[in-house]
Amino acid sequence: MITFTTDFGATEHYVGVMKGVIYSIHPAAQVADITNGVQSFDLLDGALAISQAYSYFPRNTVHVVVVDPGVGGSRRPILATVGDHLFVAPDNGVLSLVYEREERVSVRHITAEHYFHHPVSNTFHGRDIFAPVAAHLSKGVEVDKFGDEIVDFVRFLTPKPKASGAGSWKAVVLKTDKFGNLMTSITPNDIPELFALPTPAFKITVGKTEVTQLHSSYVHGAPGEVFVVLGSAGFLEISANRSSAARLAGADKGTEVSVVLT
Amino acid sequence: MITFTTDFGATEHYVGVMKGVIYSIHPAAQVADITNGVQSFDLLDGALAISQAYSYFPRNTVHVVVVDPGVGGSRRPILATVGDHLFVAPDNGVLSLVYEREERVSVRHITAEHYFHHPVSNTFHGRDIFAPVAAHLSKGVEVDKFGDEIVDFVRFLTPKPKASGAGSWKAVVLKTDKFGNLMTSITPNDIPELFALPTPAFKITVGKTEVTQLHSSYVHGAPGEVFVVLGSAGFLEISANRSSAARLAGADKGTEVSVVLT
Amino acid sequence: MITFTTDFGATEHYVGVMKGVIYSIHPAAQVADITNGVQSFDLLDGALAISQAYSYFPRNTVHVVVVDPGVGGSRRPILATVGDHLFVAPDNGVLSLVYEREERVSVRHITAEHYFHHPVSNTFHGRDIFAPVAAHLSKGVEVDKFGDEIVDFVRFLTPKPKASGAGSWKAVVLKTDKFGNLMTSITPNDIPELFALPTPAFKITVGKTEVTQLHSSYVHGAPGEVFVVLGSAGFLEISANRSSAARLAGADKGTEVSVVLT
Repeated sequence: MITFTTDFGATEHYVGVMKGVIYSIHPAAQVADITNGVQSFDLLDGALAISQAYSYFPRNTVHVVVVDPGVGGSRRPILATVGDHLFVAPDNGVLSLVYEREERVSVRHITAEHYFHHPVSNTFHGRDIFAPVAAHLSKGVEVDKFGDEIVDFVRFLTPKPKASGAGSWKAVVLKTDKFGNLMTSITPNDIPELFALPTPAFKITVGKTEVTQLHSSYVHGAPGEVFVVLGSAGFLEISANRSSAARLAGADKGTEVSVVLT
Repeated sequence: MITFTTDFGATEHYVGVMKGVIYSIHPAAQVADITNGVQSFDLLDGALAISQAYSYFPRNTVHVVVVDPGVGGSRRPILATVGDHLFVAPDNGVLSLVYEREERVSVRHITAEHYFHHPVSNTFHGRDIFAPVAAHLSKGVEVDKFGDEIVDFVRFLTPKPKASGAGSWKAVVLKTDKFGNLMTSITPNDIPELFALPTPAFKITVGKTEVTQLHSSYVHGAPGEVFVVLGSAGFLEISANRSSAARLAGADKGTEVSVVLT
Repeated sequence: MITFTTDFGATEHYVGVMKGVIYSIHPAAQVADITNGVQSFDLLDGALAISQAYSYFPRNTVHVVVVDPGVGGSRRPILATVGDHLFVAPDNGVLSLVYEREERVSVRHITAEHYFHHPVSNTFHGRDIFAPVAAHLSKGVEVDKFGDEIVDFVRFLTPKPKASGAGSWKAVVLKTDKFGNLMTSITPNDIPELFALPTPAFKITVGKTEVTQLHSSYVHGAPGEVFVVLGSAGFLEISANRSSAARLAGADKGTEVSVVLT
């Protein structure tokens, strides 16, 4: 099994080419898209997508993650064994949130050029390096055949909420999804007080909106109400019932989220 | 065979997660997208998509249909056997146009929680209920294992044209497709006079445009002309040749369509 | 193996229906999307997508290419054997750039109606002709069973750069990709002087921008700089590092590109 998480979009041939390369090497490969709609050049968006999806696939799945603004530069191509899954990706931090979730992390610098598609271009390593390496992995080639282990691989920290006073925090919107839900950087681990039962009184300010209600699901919101919900990925989401919270709140990725227990 | 019809879009991990859940339960499953681009929260749009596509798939295909604004509320998850096909969906009417097309309809309330993905979230039953149930169905688990039959399942009626006088009707645009074709609520069953041969003189008013020509295909339209055509799904479409009728007519989903035989 | 290159988009049921038709005829078919996001009615955009992708797939892959504004008119459905690949498409030139790349080109007019899906509509030959023919081909039906060879098939010429004086040329932007790269009509064959080593001094004017730098990859561009790069498809691209050259230059498909060696 091979999955794709890329920012190549659906309007060009890029993803199709990568699949062609894979099927040419391994005709029986099973390929599934996680998403090819990562925002262009956006490592955090790619990191969120792959970290929220990979663990639902079978053990030994090979995940191809290509958000690669540094292609053709000095960044290394890597093969990571993380928990029971394999990842091929550029070494630019796009796997950071995957590393965070597992104890067993082993990363190799892919150097075995005989597995590449030649000639190797300077602008499309998805086609020339990541797809063929994934295909050979899915055929059973051992990970140590692709290159040596490294320890200085790139990882970045997810933005975490910061205390800004007694019972108050500053957080941020990590992404807006297709429905207009604003996924914040807040998890129950970060601000356990907020998720205590019974739910405390609170005020969350985001964009031009103040939120004071935590609901268990979208459907419990009143028409036009902006509220918060603990989303399926484990992050606090600012949401609306059958409507876009992003539009109602005038907020988007990067907007500050202020939390006060009142 | 399992198909997907959802409003989850292509820019997040949601559809990928559902596929991961399926392959983890049934590694040999064959999965095909009908569309994941249903308009957010739009039951009619979802109902149109699945009703126009399911019958082209092989018998016993399992169709996963998730347009689910009521997730986490009181709406039931259902398993419907309709004609030779199986459907898993929320009981919110999204299968209404499928029920309309078949004589044999049997609907069950899915209650067998041991087939679910645990813990079951309040916001993503696509992952936690519909995908795993579909996977088990595709492995051959019998439908009666998932819950008891119900008769009070939700169905809504498609908007139908209404007579508004002798030889005149009011209808509506059901959806605008990617090409700008305006699919109306009019079928040959609703207004047989309009489709008689020879074609009668008529005037159809939609948005700011009056249409007086019925063509057999898009290619017969003159540049800039807005005309009607009997579309491949059996509905009358307001169209233009290599251009967007929606833009030319200033019309979209919900716009009134007035028909007069002249 | 069957691939799809269409302008049907991801928001309707059209592509799903075609896959259903294929699986109903050939349940074990392997289907991959190259892209269904070709710009509506745009033959050049479709021709670029298929020509840049097909050769990466295994020999004997059947490529379904449906950009078909003339559906229901007099244009013929064709089956082309080009090099080691098979193509089913409307005879409107959408395969022109594929024909250009191979020596062995044999084109047949598809007339064997018993392979079609009946009744054949006037508006959706993707469902009624191209998908079922592809499915039967993938099952091993011989190409000569589908119709007789023709020699007057449609092909158009790609726009090529034209000399506009000593050391100067006029070219054009062929397409803008998802990242905002402007793919021009210039290849190393057309203007070898520009790609000579050492790189000559040059000035390329596009939209409101003048470009004087050729980089080997996107990553070598300075913030806000617009430069050129030889793209993975063999065309000169006007690009920016982690930014949209289309936006920075105010240019898009069809914009003139002027090249002067200085």
